[in-house]
Amino acid sequence: MAENAKYKEVAKFWEDFEIGEKSSTNARTITEADIVMHAMHSGDWMPHHTDAEWCKTQPFKKPIMHGNGTFSISTGLCIQGEPINPHGMSYGYNKIRYPNNVFAGDTIKVVTEVIDKQDHPKSPDHGLIIEGKTTTNQHGECVCYAEHVIFVEKKKS
Amino acid sequence: MAENAKYKEVAKFWEDFEIGEKSSTNARTITEADIVMHAMHSGDWMPHHTDAEWCKTQPFKKPIMHGNGTFSISTGLCIQGEPINPHGMSYGYNKIRYPNNVFAGDTIKVVTEVIDKQDHPKSPDHGLIIEGKTTTNQHGECVCYAEHVIFVEKKKS
Amino acid sequence: MAENAKYKEVAKFWEDFEIGEKSSTNARTITEADIVMHAMHSGDWMPHHTDAEWCKTQPFKKPIMHGNGTFSISTGLCIQGEPINPHGMSYGYNKIRYPNNVFAGDTIKVVTEVIDKQDHPKSPDHGLIIEGKTTTNQHGECVCYAEHVIFVEKKKS
Amino acid sequence: MAENAKYKEVAKFWEDFEIGEKSSTNARTITEADIVMHAMHSGDWMPHHTDAEWCKTQPFKKPIMHGNGTFSISTGLCIQGEPINPHGMSYGYNKIRYPNNVFAGDTIKVVTEVIDKQDHPKSPDHGLIIEGKTTTNQHGECVCYAEHVIFVEKKKS
Amino acid sequence: MAENAKYKEVAKFWEDFEIGEKSSTNARTITEADIVMHAMHSGDWMPHHTDAEWCKTQPFKKPIMHGNGTFSISTGLCIQGEPINPHGMSYGYNKIRYPNNVFAGDTIKVVTEVIDKQDHPKSPDHGLIIEGKTTTNQHGECVCYAEHVIFVEKKKS
Amino acid sequence: MAENAKYKEVAKFWEDFEIGEKSSTNARTITEADIVMHAMHSGDWMPHHTDAEWCKTQPFKKPIMHGNGTFSISTGLCIQGEPINPHGMSYGYNKIRYPNNVFAGDTIKVVTEVIDKQDHPKSPDHGLIIEGKTTTNQHGECVCYAEHVIFVEKKKS
Repeated sequence: MAENAKYKEVAKFWEDFEIGEKSSTNARTITEADIVMHAMHSGDWMPHHTDAEWCKTQPFKKPIMHGNGTFSISTGLCIQGEPINPHGMSYGYNKIRYPNNVFAGDTIKVVTEVIDKQDHPKSPDHGLIIEGKTTTNQHGECVCYAEHVIFVEKKKS
Repeated sequence: MAENAKYKEVAKFWEDFEIGEKSSTNARTITEADIVMHAMHSGDWMPHHTDAEWCKTQPFKKPIMHGNGTFSISTGLCIQGEPINPHGMSYGYNKIRYPNNVFAGDTIKVVTEVIDKQDHPKSPDHGLIIEGKTTTNQHGECVCYAEHVIFVEKKKS
Repeated sequence: MAENAKYKEVAKFWEDFEIGEKSSTNARTITEADIVMHAMHSGDWMPHHTDAEWCKTQPFKKPIMHGNGTFSISTGLCIQGEPINPHGMSYGYNKIRYPNNVFAGDTIKVVTEVIDKQDHPKSPDHGLIIEGKTTTNQHGECVCYAEHVIFVEKKKS
Repeated sequence: MAENAKYKEVAKFWEDFEIGEKSSTNARTITEADIVMHAMHSGDWMPHHTDAEWCKTQPFKKPIMHGNGTFSISTGLCIQGEPINPHGMSYGYNKIRYPNNVFAGDTIKVVTEVIDKQDHPKSPDHGLIIEGKTTTNQHGECVCYAEHVIFVEKKKS
Repeated sequence: MAENAKYKEVAKFWEDFEIGEKSSTNARTITEADIVMHAMHSGDWMPHHTDAEWCKTQPFKKPIMHGNGTFSISTGLCIQGEPINPHGMSYGYNKIRYPNNVFAGDTIKVVTEVIDKQDHPKSPDHGLIIEGKTTTNQHGECVCYAEHVIFVEKKKS
Repeated sequence: MAENAKYKEVAKFWEDFEIGEKSSTNARTITEADIVMHAMHSGDWMPHHTDAEWCKTQPFKKPIMHGNGTFSISTGLCIQGEPINPHGMSYGYNKIRYPNNVFAGDTIKVVTEVIDKQDHPKSPDHGLIIEGKTTTNQHGECVCYAEHVIFVEKKKS
């Protein structure tokens, strides 16, 4: 009678990914509550994020979202409503940069693009897919750029 | 009368960092509440983290902490009680890997080691410091490895 | 020595309720943090609640509290400080409507009125009490109307 | 340059819904943290949910999730990854029942079925779609049943 | 039309309090999630509360609730459903002690007793009421004792 | 291989404390989210904190942080980055006063000063250290004053 939820799956082998493929996410407004929540959750209370008086003495003037908070929320945005690929699993990230600050009230969204396909150095049955994930704010400025690496099965020859 | 908090500062120029320098953090037990909190905060409700029945059908058997949750908390552990370096700022990460899962009840801590010093390609007045941050669980297994890049002023010659 | 807390009880049989009985609650201001908290807790990140830029393109202009968030908080307001009725238990709701939006900064409170008494179709020893719960904002506008059904023991004849 | 997120839309007029249409959601395990979170968020600290000693004296023995917490999370599960229908909007609920308790550790998911189509009493250009939403636990038992009403535009004749 | 919530008031002058008056609260089970929540909210991540491995090396063996967390929740328990006294306001605390630890799973409640009445040294129109607040766990052991001081108007002579 | 985190320790016997010793903390801005979080965590929803309309009728005009919330966060600020003293343990508090309100947006920090050293009435091997902890806002006004008592080992003679 009872059975597990059926997760939406889209099976893609390494060969099925094409460089240049793009997808984009919904958006989310980062609020003051999100900054406080990230400080609480991570334990990172640096004054850049939670000391408004100190921030007034800095070039950015106002508390800024933690880079890793923007990164975590960007990942969450990418995943909502996404199917599971039974042939792939996350391998990590090759690069993360935070070129602009996120302030309370900014609204962010993410565009993901397949930017590279690589053989795996040790496993001939698998390859790596490199996705560039560009998070932008409401002004179109990049606030987080991350290169996500996925470890994907190759088709049996 | 009123004045801002005085943050502990330790001024280190690029030349002051030495490859092999190490520091280590306090530890924190990742609870079921932390996994739920990361799902809520990031919006990432993949079944690996929050569907205990589905997890029973997987090799890892039980819900696992989000990689980015472990990464955020590792960063928080590194920052608690740390001084600010007025000559440096975070530049991002060059690599993040999650070689083992974190389950509710695991206790993690981080060792940071300076692993490389690089000139900055465009700014002769600055260099890059690369820190390897190794997060381990209570069994000594690595659960997160991140290469943090710091952009640091060089001494005026 | 140790014993459980003694919860305040007010014993009311079905016959003890009178149509037209009214009670009212304390008030609570719904903040931006409450909207974010409801999105996080429920996993409902529809743009109506958490994408401020998209909201600007809609008639309501600003993020709105989730209807079910207003409903949950209304229930909480009704329960604070209320005694337990050992002869009754909640049976569910017959109707929920959200005639007006709740924005961050709005202050809500609830008036409960007994609006109907019904026999229970199958259990002659019990009846149903129907309470109309009207949640209003600081302008006196109804933002949530819910008909709560309570399953209550009848007096032994 | 900057533009709002493009939300996935699936346009369905009232005529496009068919009685018997079904969809189902991902699943989520309700943890002790979720029960505490709902108590905190709603302010409903009834002993059924947060006094484990009192619960031992009751037939259900252990703290139970708030009905409205299960209802809110069910709604969140239904919404994740769902497109917006530009011709419809939520009108409220006609009925909510909680036939079985949810305990910490239970995993829930929702099946939605179109169960009725009605003309709107006052607006000839709109009709009502009634969805039955059945939330079940890992044993296949119904823990929440809600009738959701959607107000949907009719095709111009 | 709109008006503020009417808070339940019970007017008590200084003369109306009697030494030995007692009241008691509902109970609340302190969960692992509450300990994590207090660490997050306060920023107090001492290993006594959140490093389960370190705790194993200590006499108490398991993570303990922060004293101030028990104190805050005790205050919350005292306030739920309580009327406002328009003639009194909280003046602070004279003493707080934590004679026993609170572990996840413990259930606490509070007994308040008026233990002293004092004239106010500077304001002849006011006096001080000292309440002893004893928080106990499910074994009847005291886990928090706080002396609350209330500043109360005297009757006009 | 695996071993517990090494917590920074600074061993101080009772004799090592000197009256007049001072230390100060980082600062933290108390946000609306922190007030809501404290209400949720403690269950203290008094209108002073969470009913903005009622507050408009009061001398302070706007919701204020709970005293115990300010106290908990002050304690957290004092502890971040602090070493553990293996010869001492917290004994409780002798006095807490809240002379000024904390509003959303205020930034607080704490100065700790050793104000007294006392023999312990029953244990000749221990003494008490009394620390005055003064929390101030960005205007230099005291918002919380607490006398913390530490139970400290004396040197063996």
